[in-house]
Amino acid sequence: MVSGRQVESGSGPIRYGMVGGGQGAFIGAVHRIAARMDGEFELVAGALSSTPEKSLASAADLGLDPKRSYGSFAEMAKAEKRRKDGIEAVAIVTPNHMHWPAAKAFLEAGIHVICDKPLTSNLGDAKKLAALVEKSGKVFVLTHNYTGYPMVRHAREMVANGELGDIRLVHAEYPQDWLTEKAEASGSKQAAWRVDPKQSGVGGASGDIGTHAYNLARFVSGLELDSLSADLDSFVEGRQLDDNVHVMLRFKPKGEEKGAKGMLFASQVAPGHENGLKVRVYGTKGGLEWVQADPNYLWYTPFGKPKQLITRGGAGSGPASARVTRVPPGHPEGYLEGFANIYAEAARAIRAARPGGKPDKDVVFPTVQDGVEGVAFVEACVKSSKKNGAWTKL
Amino acid sequence: MVSGRQVESGSGPIRYGMVGGGQGAFIGAVHRIAARMDGEFELVAGALSSTPEKSLASAADLGLDPKRSYGSFAEMAKAEKRRKDGIEAVAIVTPNHMHWPAAKAFLEAGIHVICDKPLTSNLGDAKKLAALVEKSGKVFVLTHNYTGYPMVRHAREMVANGELGDIRLVHAEYPQDWLTEKAEASGSKQAAWRVDPKQSGVGGASGDIGTHAYNLARFVSGLELDSLSADLDSFVEGRQLDDNVHVMLRFKPKGEEKGAKGMLFASQVAPGHENGLKVRVYGTKGGLEWVQADPNYLWYTPFGKPKQLITRGGAGSGPASARVTRVPPGHPEGYLEGFANIYAEAARAIRAARPGGKPDKDVVFPTVQDGVEGVAFVEACVKSSKKNGAWTKL
Amino acid sequence: MVSGRQVESGSGPIRYGMVGGGQGAFIGAVHRIAARMDGEFELVAGALSSTPEKSLASAADLGLDPKRSYGSFAEMAKAEKRRKDGIEAVAIVTPNHMHWPAAKAFLEAGIHVICDKPLTSNLGDAKKLAALVEKSGKVFVLTHNYTGYPMVRHAREMVANGELGDIRLVHAEYPQDWLTEKAEASGSKQAAWRVDPKQSGVGGASGDIGTHAYNLARFVSGLELDSLSADLDSFVEGRQLDDNVHVMLRFKPKGEEKGAKGMLFASQVAPGHENGLKVRVYGTKGGLEWVQADPNYLWYTPFGKPKQLITRGGAGSGPASARVTRVPPGHPEGYLEGFANIYAEAARAIRAARPGGKPDKDVVFPTVQDGVEGVAFVEACVKSSKKNGAWTKL
Amino acid sequence: MVSGRQVESGSGPIRYGMVGGGQGAFIGAVHRIAARMDGEFELVAGALSSTPEKSLASAADLGLDPKRSYGSFAEMAKAEKRRKDGIEAVAIVTPNHMHWPAAKAFLEAGIHVICDKPLTSNLGDAKKLAALVEKSGKVFVLTHNYTGYPMVRHAREMVANGELGDIRLVHAEYPQDWLTEKAEASGSKQAAWRVDPKQSGVGGASGDIGTHAYNLARFVSGLELDSLSADLDSFVEGRQLDDNVHVMLRFKPKGEEKGAKGMLFASQVAPGHENGLKVRVYGTKGGLEWVQADPNYLWYTPFGKPKQLITRGGAGSGPASARVTRVPPGHPEGYLEGFANIYAEAARAIRAARPGGKPDKDVVFPTVQDGVEGVAFVEACVKSSKKNGAWTKL
Repeated sequence: MVSGRQVESGSGPIRYGMVGGGQGAFIGAVHRIAARMDGEFELVAGALSSTPEKSLASAADLGLDPKRSYGSFAEMAKAEKRRKDGIEAVAIVTPNHMHWPAAKAFLEAGIHVICDKPLTSNLGDAKKLAALVEKSGKVFVLTHNYTGYPMVRHAREMVANGELGDIRLVHAEYPQDWLTEKAEASGSKQAAWRVDPKQSGVGGASGDIGTHAYNLARFVSGLELDSLSADLDSFVEGRQLDDNVHVMLRFKPKGEEKGAKGMLFASQVAPGHENGLKVRVYGTKGGLEWVQADPNYLWYTPFGKPKQLITRGGAGSGPASARVTRVPPGHPEGYLEGFANIYAEAARAIRAARPGGKPDKDVVFPTVQDGVEGVAFVEACVKSSKKNGAWTKL
Repeated sequence: MVSGRQVESGSGPIRYGMVGGGQGAFIGAVHRIAARMDGEFELVAGALSSTPEKSLASAADLGLDPKRSYGSFAEMAKAEKRRKDGIEAVAIVTPNHMHWPAAKAFLEAGIHVICDKPLTSNLGDAKKLAALVEKSGKVFVLTHNYTGYPMVRHAREMVANGELGDIRLVHAEYPQDWLTEKAEASGSKQAAWRVDPKQSGVGGASGDIGTHAYNLARFVSGLELDSLSADLDSFVEGRQLDDNVHVMLRFKPKGEEKGAKGMLFASQVAPGHENGLKVRVYGTKGGLEWVQADPNYLWYTPFGKPKQLITRGGAGSGPASARVTRVPPGHPEGYLEGFANIYAEAARAIRAARPGGKPDKDVVFPTVQDGVEGVAFVEACVKSSKKNGAWTKL
Repeated sequence: MVSGRQVESGSGPIRYGMVGGGQGAFIGAVHRIAARMDGEFELVAGALSSTPEKSLASAADLGLDPKRSYGSFAEMAKAEKRRKDGIEAVAIVTPNHMHWPAAKAFLEAGIHVICDKPLTSNLGDAKKLAALVEKSGKVFVLTHNYTGYPMVRHAREMVANGELGDIRLVHAEYPQDWLTEKAEASGSKQAAWRVDPKQSGVGGASGDIGTHAYNLARFVSGLELDSLSADLDSFVEGRQLDDNVHVMLRFKPKGEEKGAKGMLFASQVAPGHENGLKVRVYGTKGGLEWVQADPNYLWYTPFGKPKQLITRGGAGSGPASARVTRVPPGHPEGYLEGFANIYAEAARAIRAARPGGKPDKDVVFPTVQDGVEGVAFVEACVKSSKKNGAWTKL
Repeated sequence: MVSGRQVESGSGPIRYGMVGGGQGAFIGAVHRIAARMDGEFELVAGALSSTPEKSLASAADLGLDPKRSYGSFAEMAKAEKRRKDGIEAVAIVTPNHMHWPAAKAFLEAGIHVICDKPLTSNLGDAKKLAALVEKSGKVFVLTHNYTGYPMVRHAREMVANGELGDIRLVHAEYPQDWLTEKAEASGSKQAAWRVDPKQSGVGGASGDIGTHAYNLARFVSGLELDSLSADLDSFVEGRQLDDNVHVMLRFKPKGEEKGAKGMLFASQVAPGHENGLKVRVYGTKGGLEWVQADPNYLWYTPFGKPKQLITRGGAGSGPASARVTRVPPGHPEGYLEGFANIYAEAARAIRAARPGGKPDKDVVFPTVQDGVEGVAFVEACVKSSKKNGAWTKL
């Protein structure tokens, strides 16, 4: 059955800081839980909000030393770099447009970065960031958190092992319904920045959730996209960014195979869906289906045989999922555990990067290159849609 | 709860004949069960196969009078027209390319026609057939059988009643896996004709199942298509017709609304799917989901409220579904009942067409115009795909 | 995949009559659809109601010859026996207390009997009926219709083949909610007779649905009951018969095995359940689960391996289910098909009973002995419950 | 939608120690993750194993100060009591028979106790412990963790609010399959102590998982048991404790209502079930169903209306669940979050118990009295089963 992994290490937690994530924010709290879950990280510093007062209040909520509650990320990077007990890593959980300047400041201060997705608000920033990461030699982890789910890891392992044969089709979707009405006009802070091009970039649903679906499709299938044809809409009147995304996908051929095809659907106006992320992969030998809302299940059909339900930690699941599994099968793990798995992998990478650290060859996390790919996907969607769905290379 | 409908009428069954459906066929037997289920039809004649010997043997299996087992549909139409007790209706269940000539013969003989889908193997035939139906004044029923499912009827009624608000999105899919490998090379008669352009027309999966998905999308949403962008593939080597279909849809606006958008996926190479027909409709006020394999359930989410499970005959289902419901909720009805509902509607229309017959204004069945629309869909898919996904009007 | 069975035979339908099932009845219409579905039966006579006028009106609805609409079953048995074209079989679909006298009349007239469940309203009648059936040599089929579902047949075959190892546990349940309130006081004819001891016998839910659950448990497991401990309730005030049934079961040992144990739950006051019949069997090598509302699925877990979804007609299903399957996998069959399978088996048995008829050794249907067992179950439940749950032999 | 609760408090974590939970243990690691998740607890001491060497090694794994790794719980209670920075609370995660002596030592040292279930290995110890808790005035939390799931809280709130009307039926089950074969003979430490009467007490499955099911039934329904009738088995040869539990339940009447009835099924030999805990409650106005493996869903049927799917944090869920919810709907929370909710409630109670602390009237956690009730349930099951299912008071 499950091989309980060791989630706690004796060598003390990694000191980290946070940019964004103050009072009223959503994803910052998620990052903090994820960081805490395995005891691998300790939050010691923050530039938690865009105003010093709110930053301080947020820091007090979290029990931070007031001296390490900074008024800006720039100040924080500078000050922490100088401290003997300064942070080893920073988590950047601001709106998209701040990712690049914040990441730059910390990388240049020699601090590892864990950054929320999408990577940046535009492709230019994304490429600059990728170059800087490479130059810096620092660990850079992008929290495409769904890749942390054990059964997603297992699906990827099955595809990589050839259990599905040659891949022909990849279907990904991420419907939500929370922007069906004009929530940004009703005081929702979460809605407001997501539909604001200045903070989000050129993509709305395409950037916020389309990138997740696209990343998952690539992660599981192991395929690279050749081109796409997109039809984007803003159904809610006056909304500037897309709230619905239809895309047809053409993947690059692998070896002698014909390239796979796919479809991607992302929406924030699809009533009945909370976070309906789903991925399906069909090959010459079998098919897979995984649904984020029920993440401990992986449906696998070897062609010509009965459909199987593979469960996290259960019979049929292998080492790739066991690596990121905490409890035995039948006791569900969820979103926070998946997110924490990204942090656990980040911790391994950060410890390996210490002097004398040994690299763990099995570490898997979304990289800055995955982030560049995601931003390129958003820009290609927007471009294709403006050209009436013309097939567009990334 | 359910209002048990009266499925049997005292005035005696409608005499009908069948073209196709002899030994080794699949859909003919389905039509016969559907015709029998409510006692509304009696099979009395047939041109069941393309060879007289096989026709006779098939007729004997079915207990037909050997004199009314004909060597060809032409002979049958002629002979039955002359009989005082000749057939009132014919069921045409041949491969697609025979639909038009057979239908022509019977319509010209003054005999009502129940015809399998798609309507014809090409749009030219389809239009000629539509013109002839109009001219003839005869009943013509196309067996897009999925429109006979009670919960599909209920979904359509909800949309028509405005319970979903303005429709923004329509997603339909029909994945199968039975042609994942080259079944047409292994002696499958069902596979062989479906992948043969001479018998099927220009569409493979697009014609065989794509038309079902498209018809269902139109039926439930009440929308008409403006244009589509398609990407078709034949994944199995040497297969001449498409076995996988990706389409983006743009519907015509209704009133002052912006036109709805959609996606359609049909595949015969998606392992894990038997007959995975599914339709989803999202509007400004709510969303619906219906899955053919579990047809007694309709998932309905009024925006901002909990998802509801509406069941056939159960609380929340209305007159449109009660009309085509035989047994109380919790005792599932299936594919054959849905198919039989098309026959039941056909019977009502045929009885109404008799001298002195009274029309039933609630009769609903797929018409020859729906069939023209379906063939136009297939041709538009093929055309768009050849033009690299150019948006194509029907 | 599926081996389409031949559901139509060329030798002409079996003439049958019906007792009960007139206007306003429920189960009679179900029997008639089931009888019609495969073209094996033709309804030619009836004593459809307890009053001659209503009988005649009902007969007219069904297109029966008015001369063969009888005022009583006794008259019908007598008259049909004398006719050269008299009925070969009768379907008895009255309330329970009429089963025995009606069956007696027809068996003594040399007419085969298809009888609704439970067999009789008391064990004395049941035993007399069993003796008479044996003496008569006639076919007697009890419509425990759920045994007609293909996946139930497959489950039984798996257990019989030893695929589950030694059986340890059998859990059956049949919750409904339609009698949560006092429907019998609100004009529901279906409710009224079911809660009336004169028409139903000593059991309420125990007789009406408990017998189905019990029969299914026996059918699938192949086990015989040793004893039971029951706790019955009538939750609705003033209701004379039980509307909720809790039972613990002890089965007789098979060979050297320890006897299996079980639980049975039947209820008419469980809101949320329409016809929630479910059976689960657990053995030393694996487990099975089948749910009536989703009858095309059988969940099978070989111990230590992933759970499998076996589908009707799909990979993994075998000859026992193929025998009673009409359409390929993915196109669901339902309650009426399952019911029709009982009629199809009855047709085979009746044809085999004709002079020169050849018995079909694979015919499977619920017998009069199964009926005796069911009535004994009800009486044992009532007896045990009155004795505060004392373990009671059947 | 969801009101994100504040899961982090600024006043610094609660120092706690652990008894048991060393290398090779299972539930200890779960407690530690649960304690860490919200940042409310800090592990600073331990008597992690029964041998000093293993304790030290385990402590090193966890980064504990070696001086606070104790050779026994007695030593730890004594030493920590004396420290100025001693632990405020202890988590006891040993086999059952150690709960009472360990809890006694810490309560007498003035240290709050969080204790795994079942409370003790026998009713005598349980009652002594309850008396001591009362006398000590310390916080005592029993980790019946399933009561921490948000949708369980919501179900309880609905029942308490009368949304189901008078409760008639409560059905609970907890099937597992991991002891289908003789795992205790194959080196499974988890299996070995659970089937050993010296460590577990008189109950096997009844104590290990039956108590969970029973506790959940009580928690959700708000009812108290009057008596039970049980049939216990040890199916695996040579196993001393029960591995399968069948129980019929009679609850005490509330007000003028008739007492509710119920069934409880717990098994460790039911192939196909990982942790199949499920609870169903049926009342005069509606029914509820909750399944542990899919914990973010609560199925609710108001009688006569469509079934509803209430989701954690989604429309229809209320304050009782929002209190223990971390992330918005559609991002599943799981077993560890549910467990952490017990720790979060414990933290609130412990902070409230500090000098000047303010009690939080909404704190809900399983108490020592719930534990006494659970052990009484096990002993009553064993007693009833020995007396052939005689109805037995707790």
